[in-house]
Amino acid sequence: MTTHGVVDTPAFMPVGTQGSVKGISPRELRELNAQIVLGNTYHLFVRPGLDVIKHFGGLHRFMNWDGPILTDSGGYQIFSLAKLRKITEDGVEFQNHIDGARAFISPEIAMEIQAALGSDIAMALDECVPYPCEYDYAAQSAEMTTRWAKRCKAVASAVLSGEFSTRSPHGSDALRTAHTTTRQLLFGVVQGATFEDLRKQSAQAIVDLDFDGYAIGGVSVGEPEQEMMRGVESAEPFLPRDKPRYAMGLGTPPQLLEMIARGMDMFDCVLPTRLARNGTAFTARGTLNLKNAEFALDKRPIEENCSCDVCREFSRGYIRHLIKAEEILGLRLITLHNLHFYLNLMRQARSEIERGTFDQFRRMFVAEYKPRDAMTVE
Amino acid sequence: MTTHGVVDTPAFMPVGTQGSVKGISPRELRELNAQIVLGNTYHLFVRPGLDVIKHFGGLHRFMNWDGPILTDSGGYQIFSLAKLRKITEDGVEFQNHIDGARAFISPEIAMEIQAALGSDIAMALDECVPYPCEYDYAAQSAEMTTRWAKRCKAVASAVLSGEFSTRSPHGSDALRTAHTTTRQLLFGVVQGATFEDLRKQSAQAIVDLDFDGYAIGGVSVGEPEQEMMRGVESAEPFLPRDKPRYAMGLGTPPQLLEMIARGMDMFDCVLPTRLARNGTAFTARGTLNLKNAEFALDKRPIEENCSCDVCREFSRGYIRHLIKAEEILGLRLITLHNLHFYLNLMRQARSEIERGTFDQFRRMFVAEYKPRDAMTVE
Repeated sequence: MTTHGVVDTPAFMPVGTQGSVKGISPRELRELNAQIVLGNTYHLFVRPGLDVIKHFGGLHRFMNWDGPILTDSGGYQIFSLAKLRKITEDGVEFQNHIDGARAFISPEIAMEIQAALGSDIAMALDECVPYPCEYDYAAQSAEMTTRWAKRCKAVASAVLSGEFSTRSPHGSDALRTAHTTTRQLLFGVVQGATFEDLRKQSAQAIVDLDFDGYAIGGVSVGEPEQEMMRGVESAEPFLPRDKPRYAMGLGTPPQLLEMIARGMDMFDCVLPTRLARNGTAFTARGTLNLKNAEFALDKRPIEENCSCDVCREFSRGYIRHLIKAEEILGLRLITLHNLHFYLNLMRQARSEIERGTFDQFRRMFVAEYKPRDAMTVE
Repeated sequence: MTTHGVVDTPAFMPVGTQGSVKGISPRELRELNAQIVLGNTYHLFVRPGLDVIKHFGGLHRFMNWDGPILTDSGGYQIFSLAKLRKITEDGVEFQNHIDGARAFISPEIAMEIQAALGSDIAMALDECVPYPCEYDYAAQSAEMTTRWAKRCKAVASAVLSGEFSTRSPHGSDALRTAHTTTRQLLFGVVQGATFEDLRKQSAQAIVDLDFDGYAIGGVSVGEPEQEMMRGVESAEPFLPRDKPRYAMGLGTPPQLLEMIARGMDMFDCVLPTRLARNGTAFTARGTLNLKNAEFALDKRPIEENCSCDVCREFSRGYIRHLIKAEEILGLRLITLHNLHFYLNLMRQARSEIERGTFDQFRRMFVAEYKPRDAMTVE
């Protein structure tokens, strides 16, 4: 339950990087029954900037989305996109990837920015280490992430009790508003790279700080799938079962089901939108690359028996033509289908969980789903 | 009245170049109350090709648009896009601009292609001469266009009476179907460049052939606006008042009203979709370039008092952000507004004509509308 509505779990969050889920309108998101979207703090901080979003009364109003929004802390993009990063105990100094302007984000500033965005769920600032990562660096980094989490939590608590004050350039008015009139939830992030003991220690330390929910970060950063699963398995037993648990930045449809089997409740992933722009559609049998010549005369929908509007109205052949001709409608249609596929997979998972048949469903789905490289002609 | 429905005039036809009005879905076109769309025969002939569209049962089914479609003859794009053109009395040989494949289009083949597309209104093949153009060339070309029109008409008549036969590579089955089970209308095209006497002669000769409607082609090809108006004025008196009259490929909102004042009923133009992709929106006061920094904090809709969904839901500031961030939703929103603007202008024109107040409306609109270069800060 968030200020802007209820989120049923397991939940998939379409990614609205720059204040828009790529190619899709808020109305289409509502029609897809998306219950929550993710906003990228780093991207929005860089462009259009906080002043603009504050002027419009927060991200919900700016993008005309009245459902729940989760914002990440910005950390992941600082580590993956920004230039000339300098990480200290205090925070991260960086140059943004758009105009190279210097900026500094600390745990406190990450909280202020997310408060200004007015998201329903904020994430504590963490350091996401790359893969592979040395044990010592991973250990020190995870400890710093815990100290940063503590500072984020302190900001949230101080705001709630009215004690917060700051000299930050971004000001704290919006932050106070977000936390008092509409209670912004705060999730902590577990790190620890691929090391079982570090994952456990990180999970315990973060849970000790008592957040509204817990995320597992630093997964799906290039490590083999087995390592990814082990990273989640190592942390999960230490996360309370009565709080939402969020596996960040993943994954393929089978990975999502495997994560649900391992106790995860929330997901975000760019795959359905990003692959759509490349002409790739998800089906229960695996992905289809609609650019392929074999689809030129194919009158079938992207996926037979799919209940989405796109599959009811358009053929593979037409969509292939649009993609080949670089017509925007092509990527729009595949994006709509792919988001429907992900959201529907979560609906199926919820109903199978309720009926106590989830494990069987997961096993059958995973067996039927062909990994991309192994896909044969449909 | 066409096979797929009634078209109220004056009518604006959104341009669906490659089987899609750029950025827009058929459902959005219906919601915009677009009554007819234009399909570009040349583009569809080159890609996906006739075999594909025939396989899907024609353009309506292929693109999932069940309203009327007008197809051009392909001539204009052959003259503006294709390479190595060779024009003879027989037809035009060219290399397409996509893969350079050689092709030949004659009046007969243009009719077959449009029959295969299954449009509600087909256009006779014409030669559209460039601006400026020598008098002698314009005269000879207009005469050839008349002979070509006669051949197009002969095909349509032969099909109607069941006498048509051809050895063309494209086959005539689709053509026969289009003309017998669903009567495809055929419009003739008046040419004559900027020469008053040639326009008159062309109009008379084309009207003598007795088409279902008449188009004025070779306008808005780079000539000054005054010349364009004169081209239409020179031809119009010779076009029957009880048949639709179509001014091809134009224009700005004031130009459309001026054309309506000069007796024109139908229009097609890429401006609302093309300018949208560049961040430019139409308003009754002129165009707005939403990329401009002045709109960053602007909470107003694109146009105040506009009844379109975009203006009810989104601010200039948000749309500016989307365009600057190169988000597809930005050009989608402006495209929707711009098409609404054009279609609504036609609705207003129809109602003013019915009330007998069109001239006053036109004068006021033209006076209020600032040409692009003269636009000041809104």
